[in-house]
Amino acid sequence: MELWQLTAAEASRRMEAGQLTSETYTRALLERIRERDPLIRAWSWMDAEYALRQARERDREPRRGPLHGIPFGAKDVLNTRDMPTQHNSPIYYGHRPNEDANCVAVLRAAGMVVMGKTETLEFASGGRKPLSRNPHNPEHTPGGSSSGSGAAVGDAMVPIALGTQTGGSTIRPAAFCGTYGMKPTFGRISFEGAKHYSVQLDTIGLFGRSAQDLWLTAQAFRLTGAEAPPTGSAAGLRIGLCETPMWKDATPDGREALHRAGKMLAEAGAKVSTLVLPEPFDRLTEQQDVIMHEGGRGAFLPEYFGAGHLLHQEFRDKVENKRGFTSEQMRYVIDQVALRRMEFEKLIGDLDAFMTLSTPGEAPHGIKSTGDAAFNRMFTAMHVPCITVPGLTGRNGLPVGIQFIQRRYEDEKLLRVAAAVATVLDPATAGSR
Amino acid sequence: MELWQLTAAEASRRMEAGQLTSETYTRALLERIRERDPLIRAWSWMDAEYALRQARERDREPRRGPLHGIPFGAKDVLNTRDMPTQHNSPIYYGHRPNEDANCVAVLRAAGMVVMGKTETLEFASGGRKPLSRNPHNPEHTPGGSSSGSGAAVGDAMVPIALGTQTGGSTIRPAAFCGTYGMKPTFGRISFEGAKHYSVQLDTIGLFGRSAQDLWLTAQAFRLTGAEAPPTGSAAGLRIGLCETPMWKDATPDGREALHRAGKMLAEAGAKVSTLVLPEPFDRLTEQQDVIMHEGGRGAFLPEYFGAGHLLHQEFRDKVENKRGFTSEQMRYVIDQVALRRMEFEKLIGDLDAFMTLSTPGEAPHGIKSTGDAAFNRMFTAMHVPCITVPGLTGRNGLPVGIQFIQRRYEDEKLLRVAAAVATVLDPATAGSR
Repeated sequence: MELWQLTAAEASRRMEAGQLTSETYTRALLERIRERDPLIRAWSWMDAEYALRQARERDREPRRGPLHGIPFGAKDVLNTRDMPTQHNSPIYYGHRPNEDANCVAVLRAAGMVVMGKTETLEFASGGRKPLSRNPHNPEHTPGGSSSGSGAAVGDAMVPIALGTQTGGSTIRPAAFCGTYGMKPTFGRISFEGAKHYSVQLDTIGLFGRSAQDLWLTAQAFRLTGAEAPPTGSAAGLRIGLCETPMWKDATPDGREALHRAGKMLAEAGAKVSTLVLPEPFDRLTEQQDVIMHEGGRGAFLPEYFGAGHLLHQEFRDKVENKRGFTSEQMRYVIDQVALRRMEFEKLIGDLDAFMTLSTPGEAPHGIKSTGDAAFNRMFTAMHVPCITVPGLTGRNGLPVGIQFIQRRYEDEKLLRVAAAVATVLDPATAGSR
Repeated sequence: MELWQLTAAEASRRMEAGQLTSETYTRALLERIRERDPLIRAWSWMDAEYALRQARERDREPRRGPLHGIPFGAKDVLNTRDMPTQHNSPIYYGHRPNEDANCVAVLRAAGMVVMGKTETLEFASGGRKPLSRNPHNPEHTPGGSSSGSGAAVGDAMVPIALGTQTGGSTIRPAAFCGTYGMKPTFGRISFEGAKHYSVQLDTIGLFGRSAQDLWLTAQAFRLTGAEAPPTGSAAGLRIGLCETPMWKDATPDGREALHRAGKMLAEAGAKVSTLVLPEPFDRLTEQQDVIMHEGGRGAFLPEYFGAGHLLHQEFRDKVENKRGFTSEQMRYVIDQVALRRMEFEKLIGDLDAFMTLSTPGEAPHGIKSTGDAAFNRMFTAMHVPCITVPGLTGRNGLPVGIQFIQRRYEDEKLLRVAAAVATVLDPATAGSR
């Protein structure tokens, strides 16, 4: 096994045991990047020498914790005090904020090496497309808007990355790129220093090469307790499988994959039941869309006033409220979503997880679109924590992710479920951790 | 009338008519500051020459709009690209972010002069107290946490200021300092580039010397349409007066002031009815408190890890969840608040405004405490827009503000109500506008 193939958890164990230095590991990842990134284009900014300098500094220090010396990538809508933050917007070419986003500062404080910035859809919202390609087949999209973070972790250029999710921007690219992704409970990781879009939805997302990688990253943010997650067993897990109102958008191999995953888990001893979401949930995706777009009225005002000619028309339309959202409509959709939150969690009850697809199916062909976020938007709106677990593939051999969901603030419980189901759905990774 | 006594609206009219330059006006305000600030301590950072340089630049340009050339103060938790942003925290002494907060950028784009940074409670949340004093009696607090913004506008050192409100940090200081303050609907002004505390509550607040000043500022943020607000008349307004569950916390002169205001409006032809909030509203303040404090677990993680020894114990306690908030409790309080939002707005119905006290009464003696936010916290939690209107005083001759509230996203309607009731409660200012 090559060093770049290690999960963060395994690299951490080797460093802890004195068998691996941050410099050696970082160098191996940089080699991987040098080889692969001309094709995959996961990175919008990278300085190999600077990454190595950080790694050497970490090697000289006492270890601060399990992530000490592990490199990560940061989506280019997250401010970094030592690298450009360009939002894939010509307004921000060469822009260098001198403060870290809260989430970047936390991982830096944990001793991690900031490897570089990853490609994003313009302002993680619309407009200019990222250049990234799917590492499993470069003719396909890696998903978005955290396209570079998904592609970089999916291609093992870096074991951990940060993204954001306002619609489906973390779970979708993680699933398309065949890796692990987590959208924590809304608000549990501060959004300070990230480009805002909708304050009711904006969430920091995590990418890792295994459920343990997600656990370690979540731990740095204090979403979990101090110990490593049990690898667990799927036996005895009570899981509610749900096709959701988006089933009509799922592809045949997406549909097949969800039911196959349900069978695999049942065969491993999980109690898989079937859930149906009542009719009002049919409108959640549309309601999320209203809340998200309306957020753009205020979020992009400075760019609109200060450099409107460089701002993509999509953002000008948001600021000018071209869709004509009304006060009454905003109150209605926000309150409807709040009611669905309560009903959804009552439905989950004491199940170990709600289970559905992460995306409609495999990553679509081409990179003009980052694919459909249908299976993400309602869960983002409901503020619940979501994790996508890889392992299954569709007819093109591309990954199909299975999404597990818990009630708000049950991030730790969900991380344990992810570790357990990964032993069934993704045994190769779960075995090596 | 001295130039420093002008409202922003009146200064704007004179500039528009070519009777006043930004430089002359800014100079008059700087004189006022030089004279008064050694006592009032509204400002944490100020460079008179730099303010004048901005004013001269604005004078050389075509007017961008009604706020062109008008100075404003920015609370020192709002990033400014050309001034320090210190959060009243030793961790941030001399700290100079190189980006403007979204709200600062918008007012700068409107042609305003950034006069300086105003005093704040540490991170607008707790810990170190601001040095500001009440301009009506320096032995009393100006309120907080936007203490400097309230004191600066209340003392006519600047006609407009920005603050924040997570509990009562805008309405309270505006009321204590005898000026106009507005907490817009949650999320309508982007919080990007402000120090975050609780993502479910953090709101940018506006201070002005008149209802028209608030209107002009709100207009820059596109919360209102293009025209100036009608000065309106209180006649015919349907207002619901409510003592609220916090009535037990109100002082005798606070109580008297609210009912006096109700009588004055009724005598002016308003239809003032009495509203009672049902029993579940009794727990809203406590629920707001849980949501707010829990936000500190993630908000202050970077400071906790990076410079914990310089972080006030209050913040360390938040990060460490000393109050032991549970997942179940968080879901419960968030959902309860969501239900109250719906009930509250049904209660307001098509009233022109809900009316209550802005604070329990006059500003308390001393500056060790910034006073009680009892009359603000439940409304912040409900995300509704609130405006405090001055004009009345208590037994010590200190201001007592009256708070007007509308349904979410009805900011424009509320601004019209404020302009109308100001003609009754604060005729001196409303007359001069």
